[in-house]
Amino acid sequence: MAITVVGSVAYDSIETPAGRRERCLGGAATYFSLAASFFTEVRVIAVVGEDFGPEQEGVFHARKIDTRGIERAPGKSFFWEGSYLENLNEAKTHNTELNVFASFEPKIPEAYRDSEFLFLANIDPVLQKRVRDAMPGVKLVAGDTMNYWIKDHRAALEQVLKGLDILLINDTEARMIAANNNLLQAARAVMALGPRFLVIKHGEYGATLFHGSATKIGERTFRAPALPLEQVVDPTGAGDSFAGGFFGYLASQKELTPGGFRRAMFYGSVMGSFACERFGTERLQEITRADIDTRFDAFRELTHLD
Amino acid sequence: MAITVVGSVAYDSIETPAGRRERCLGGAATYFSLAASFFTEVRVIAVVGEDFGPEQEGVFHARKIDTRGIERAPGKSFFWEGSYLENLNEAKTHNTELNVFASFEPKIPEAYRDSEFLFLANIDPVLQKRVRDAMPGVKLVAGDTMNYWIKDHRAALEQVLKGLDILLINDTEARMIAANNNLLQAARAVMALGPRFLVIKHGEYGATLFHGSATKIGERTFRAPALPLEQVVDPTGAGDSFAGGFFGYLASQKELTPGGFRRAMFYGSVMGSFACERFGTERLQEITRADIDTRFDAFRELTHLD
Repeated sequence: MAITVVGSVAYDSIETPAGRRERCLGGAATYFSLAASFFTEVRVIAVVGEDFGPEQEGVFHARKIDTRGIERAPGKSFFWEGSYLENLNEAKTHNTELNVFASFEPKIPEAYRDSEFLFLANIDPVLQKRVRDAMPGVKLVAGDTMNYWIKDHRAALEQVLKGLDILLINDTEARMIAANNNLLQAARAVMALGPRFLVIKHGEYGATLFHGSATKIGERTFRAPALPLEQVVDPTGAGDSFAGGFFGYLASQKELTPGGFRRAMFYGSVMGSFACERFGTERLQEITRADIDTRFDAFRELTHLD
Repeated sequence: MAITVVGSVAYDSIETPAGRRERCLGGAATYFSLAASFFTEVRVIAVVGEDFGPEQEGVFHARKIDTRGIERAPGKSFFWEGSYLENLNEAKTHNTELNVFASFEPKIPEAYRDSEFLFLANIDPVLQKRVRDAMPGVKLVAGDTMNYWIKDHRAALEQVLKGLDILLINDTEARMIAANNNLLQAARAVMALGPRFLVIKHGEYGATLFHGSATKIGERTFRAPALPLEQVVDPTGAGDSFAGGFFGYLASQKELTPGGFRRAMFYGSVMGSFACERFGTERLQEITRADIDTRFDAFRELTHLD
């Protein structure tokens, strides 16, 4: 089933212990789309500036991603500059230029309206809500957010959470939303705000899926590992790639089952691990479905008793 | 097969967000012994002061732990005071009194000499080495250490590492020994110093077993989860309890197999999770083998795809 994703398509300048890249293609919707495209049909809603050309669009088209919802606006694309020199798990932002994103008004192409899955990548919750409301027929809605919206746009964010089936956030964000440091208690508090499923990402330690009331350990909780990587070249987009693998796999299933959610967690971790292996989207552009399945098996071998 | 463990038997005063306890029974050898005692015969080498009485000894005897190697010395037992008020993952030490431990000279009872497994809990590496050398017939030797020895007693520690089959440490300690932040590279550097197997504990995120050259992911790496706990009452001794469950289970096996090591990682995590549920050794004193197996199954359910 097709996924529509709304979020940022951007340029990133990134510095890590492995080196530096200037203005590489990035943005949450970009990483999400590339990762999800290995599993299902993906349609993007975003806005870009005049600096977004055929080369960038070609990255999407090479993975058969529908870009008819990527609007061109006068000016420059969203730009982010950051580094991970001291801590590979947390970016230090040096510069953010919203540019055309500052006046983004998501428009949903007619051809996207039959999408059964919707992913609201990390953007202003007011826009997330607008897109969600404009697509009442979707079967499953997932979303992401970040500290900025949690801290200063709480009311708008809570409106979005009410309409989500699945929220994907990291430890810090979960603890911040819940104002509670205990992960299990925080998960329960976040789910009380709306999402039936909650994926909390632990960076290099994997991710946990909570569902239902999350009181009975095991049955209602699932933990996927991350892969110990030889070298984390660039963690940018790892979380969005996780979301793409996770939600893309779910969308590829005929029906949603507990086993499907578990495998989706593994595919999320797989895609997140690939994203870190080269700068920007480089690794996601070169891998094949066979690479993904080989790594999926390695994850199973990494965690399974028998 | 019987395990001999050398390490501290102590009193701890502990403060956590869940409350405070004064002078409860603690020490690495205590937690290790209690956890391992559910799987195999355990023999302790330690030194205590005149404040260690029948009540404390009864805690060991209730679990059929051999205490003939616990020496009584004039003075007070080792005492530690710490809190976890800001961060449940890291203790803040307020006071350490070595007391009788300052002049500890481990003596190995004759009855311990046929032990096939030896655990060197976190004590001065000079003493670890002495005990290890005094028991040349053991089949498998595992050990622990801490930042203090890594930082200021490097040469002595390296002598211990040479004689270890298995080292159990946490992320920070692994990175400190290797002077490398990448977990996989750090693991390889630590194993180059001696241990064939390395268990790196990630606190609330579980633990990873590295073995062989740790270059091929999956086959030579295994990751066990930790359990998301409703309330971490007191994390003191969780790492030692992990070691006890891990090593105790290995010692209970007729032969050492890759599958046995994997299950041992799970039993380690299981025992670590119990240790956190009440203050000090309280929870380890009340659980049964049936509780352990039930939780083992919950861990499998938490992580397994099928």
